[in-house]
Amino acid sequence: MKQKRFFLSEDEIPRRWYNIQADMPNKPLPMLDPVTREPVTVESLSKIFALECCRQELNLTDRWIDIPDEVREMYKYYRSTPLVRAYGLEKALDTPAHIYFKNESVSPVGSHKLNSALAQAWYCKQEGVTNVTTETGAGQWGTALAYSARLFGMDSAVYQVKVSYEQKPYRRNMMQVFGAQVTPSPSMSTRAGKNILTVNPNHQGSLGTAISEAIELALNTPEKCKYTLGSTMSHVSLHQTVIGLEAEKQMEAAGEYPDTIIACFGGGSNFSGIAFPFMRHTILEGKKTEYLAVEPSSCPKLTRGEFRYDFGDEAGYTPLIPMYTLGHKFIPANIHAGGLRYHGAGGVVSQLLKDGYIKGVDIDQLDSFKAGVEFAKAEGIIPAPESCHAIAATVKEALKCRESGESKVILFNLTGHGLMDMSSYDQYLSGNLINIPAGDKEIKKYLEIE
Amino acid sequence: MKQKRFFLSEDEIPRRWYNIQADMPNKPLPMLDPVTREPVTVESLSKIFALECCRQELNLTDRWIDIPDEVREMYKYYRSTPLVRAYGLEKALDTPAHIYFKNESVSPVGSHKLNSALAQAWYCKQEGVTNVTTETGAGQWGTALAYSARLFGMDSAVYQVKVSYEQKPYRRNMMQVFGAQVTPSPSMSTRAGKNILTVNPNHQGSLGTAISEAIELALNTPEKCKYTLGSTMSHVSLHQTVIGLEAEKQMEAAGEYPDTIIACFGGGSNFSGIAFPFMRHTILEGKKTEYLAVEPSSCPKLTRGEFRYDFGDEAGYTPLIPMYTLGHKFIPANIHAGGLRYHGAGGVVSQLLKDGYIKGVDIDQLDSFKAGVEFAKAEGIIPAPESCHAIAATVKEALKCRESGESKVILFNLTGHGLMDMSSYDQYLSGNLINIPAGDKEIKKYLEIE
Repeated sequence: MKQKRFFLSEDEIPRRWYNIQADMPNKPLPMLDPVTREPVTVESLSKIFALECCRQELNLTDRWIDIPDEVREMYKYYRSTPLVRAYGLEKALDTPAHIYFKNESVSPVGSHKLNSALAQAWYCKQEGVTNVTTETGAGQWGTALAYSARLFGMDSAVYQVKVSYEQKPYRRNMMQVFGAQVTPSPSMSTRAGKNILTVNPNHQGSLGTAISEAIELALNTPEKCKYTLGSTMSHVSLHQTVIGLEAEKQMEAAGEYPDTIIACFGGGSNFSGIAFPFMRHTILEGKKTEYLAVEPSSCPKLTRGEFRYDFGDEAGYTPLIPMYTLGHKFIPANIHAGGLRYHGAGGVVSQLLKDGYIKGVDIDQLDSFKAGVEFAKAEGIIPAPESCHAIAATVKEALKCRESGESKVILFNLTGHGLMDMSSYDQYLSGNLINIPAGDKEIKKYLEIE
Repeated sequence: MKQKRFFLSEDEIPRRWYNIQADMPNKPLPMLDPVTREPVTVESLSKIFALECCRQELNLTDRWIDIPDEVREMYKYYRSTPLVRAYGLEKALDTPAHIYFKNESVSPVGSHKLNSALAQAWYCKQEGVTNVTTETGAGQWGTALAYSARLFGMDSAVYQVKVSYEQKPYRRNMMQVFGAQVTPSPSMSTRAGKNILTVNPNHQGSLGTAISEAIELALNTPEKCKYTLGSTMSHVSLHQTVIGLEAEKQMEAAGEYPDTIIACFGGGSNFSGIAFPFMRHTILEGKKTEYLAVEPSSCPKLTRGEFRYDFGDEAGYTPLIPMYTLGHKFIPANIHAGGLRYHGAGGVVSQLLKDGYIKGVDIDQLDSFKAGVEFAKAEGIIPAPESCHAIAATVKEALKCRESGESKVILFNLTGHGLMDMSSYDQYLSGNLINIPAGDKEIKKYLEIE
């Protein structure tokens, strides 16, 4: 009988994160200060973020960054996460492909987001911060940050995208168990929120609106309060590389190497996490591996966006980032994969996409849930709606292998479980969900707004 | 830095279950046929259950029962489950006790119930069954059975206790993702259900009513359909011993042996699972270990019930079981730990309680949630309301150690996560839950009904 799951001992949990910026053939263009339009510095960024995160953000030279002992100790509560050979899914698809997934859903809070939340919370704590703020879409990041803040004795305030706040009440409850103050965004509690609601009283919120509100709250109490971000920025991607670094060792234990690596894509954190450690072999040694970043057809910045400088949030508080974007005023349709409702990609991922290392793939909402249910029946794990996008792309690749007879090795990242999203599954099974791909006119309209 | 989590390799996953009936100093009294009042036989029991389960049920001689290869292969999807040293909780309680927990919440369906569901579904499938029925309280067992049935290509029908069906809609959705037909009990779809509703139209259901309905459905199509049970019976306890057998090896790896073993108690499945493998050393070698079975104060059969023959269900379809019981017509209060709302204990556990091997402990609803929130903040895992009872008892023991200065080794079983129960936590945090201990008059009343 063959081995299904691969673990590492606590000793083998990585001691360093991988900083792909050191190895990129073309470095990302600099981010620009939103006011001066000059390249940002560690100092200017640190008005918003923990100082150490800013240093990591702008570090273009050090390939390896040490994981603080205290963070690594907390990683031990759930890492290594299992690498699983999806025999059940292979059988259901009758494919010769070898499908593996990295199961990040086993973290205490149910997703990969904890990998960076623990690090960011730790750095904040070290720098004397007492309150942290953040945004969250579906709630995965907000939960991770709320838990991490509690762990290190800080308070947390989370702005949750309004549509998710209403779709997923259990997520809010979960953040509250960890002591977070949760506010639906846009709200009347910030200037940014008020401005948005004045223009559009029925605005359902997006990661862009929630980021604006959380940053504003942090800026209002700069000494004691810092903002933390769940995706997009390179320091977040850095922390997430613990996923791929583990997967690399685990694939070795399984005796295989991935031909194709697949991850869903909102701002890029889980995609970077699983892909970058493998991508260093592509960059440095020319290893042939395909990297698929899977976005929803309702928010297709990778496949249909433009590469240019844009803000990371609705109100324009963040630096200008060189990114593939649909425009920072873009309002994504109300799909249930709340974590993918973001208008732009991070600067590093955008450069790598531009340079041909990454391929964008878009998936319709119904295809994502169809694949999610198929996976649940075959493997027993109900995936988060975000992860369903990676699964749908995996299923497509595996079916291509059935046609061609190829035994490709496919590795995808299961970012989280969907246990907080059962109402979404209920609606899918009842036939009440539809596809909501972005229209050409809509995309053009928002790209024209500066 | 000390190790936090202990795993076994796939090779070390147990190959045999432990049958405590072979080692009991006093065997349990025989179950009696509900019609003839004669001791049940494998043949008479097999009208309801899979034949192999009936053989296991009445096996008083074989200490070890082989786990079928196919079941063990499915165990590999989530086993071994981690044994975790709860450093976070120890610190929060400032206790010298060493607290360990076996984390069964990592199973795909979120609880220990899968250990027996896979076995029962496999035996049914082997015997040509195409449809399985069952009851479920909070939904943990129903989810496990629905998934297992799907895995082996059978249909499933689940009667869910009405109050849980309404409190926990996500659980129902989860069973439906796995293809189960879910009906709130009592329902008008069975004679038993109709009778209950005629007497009490507002009956909120109990495990006893749901068992009656599920058995009736199975009896109506005897050739193709079998009933499966999530607790109480000795074959269910047998399958669950995989928990304790793993924990035994893992505690050895941790270099300790438990002084106290704690588990919540509904019908006895998880309690038996973690306790029996250790208890064999108490029975055979006189090893001094304390075994605490923790029940809700609203359903206190172990601490305030009577030992006598009683039915396992409301309608009286099951055999008469020699058990500690509150009477099979007992209607437990609507606490949120749905899996503990059961009037009786299994025959084997009842005999061991009678013989002094086990100690019953009762916990109020508010104390259970208080302990659950404390655990969540310290360890990051939100426990099922059932598991909160075990945690509350663990906290009490650990605080006793703080008083006495003793470094007792405490092992408890975390049966499942509470992610489907966030509305219960929401109500607790909002101050909307109360204690509902059973009254003396109420207990007396139901014990007087034959």
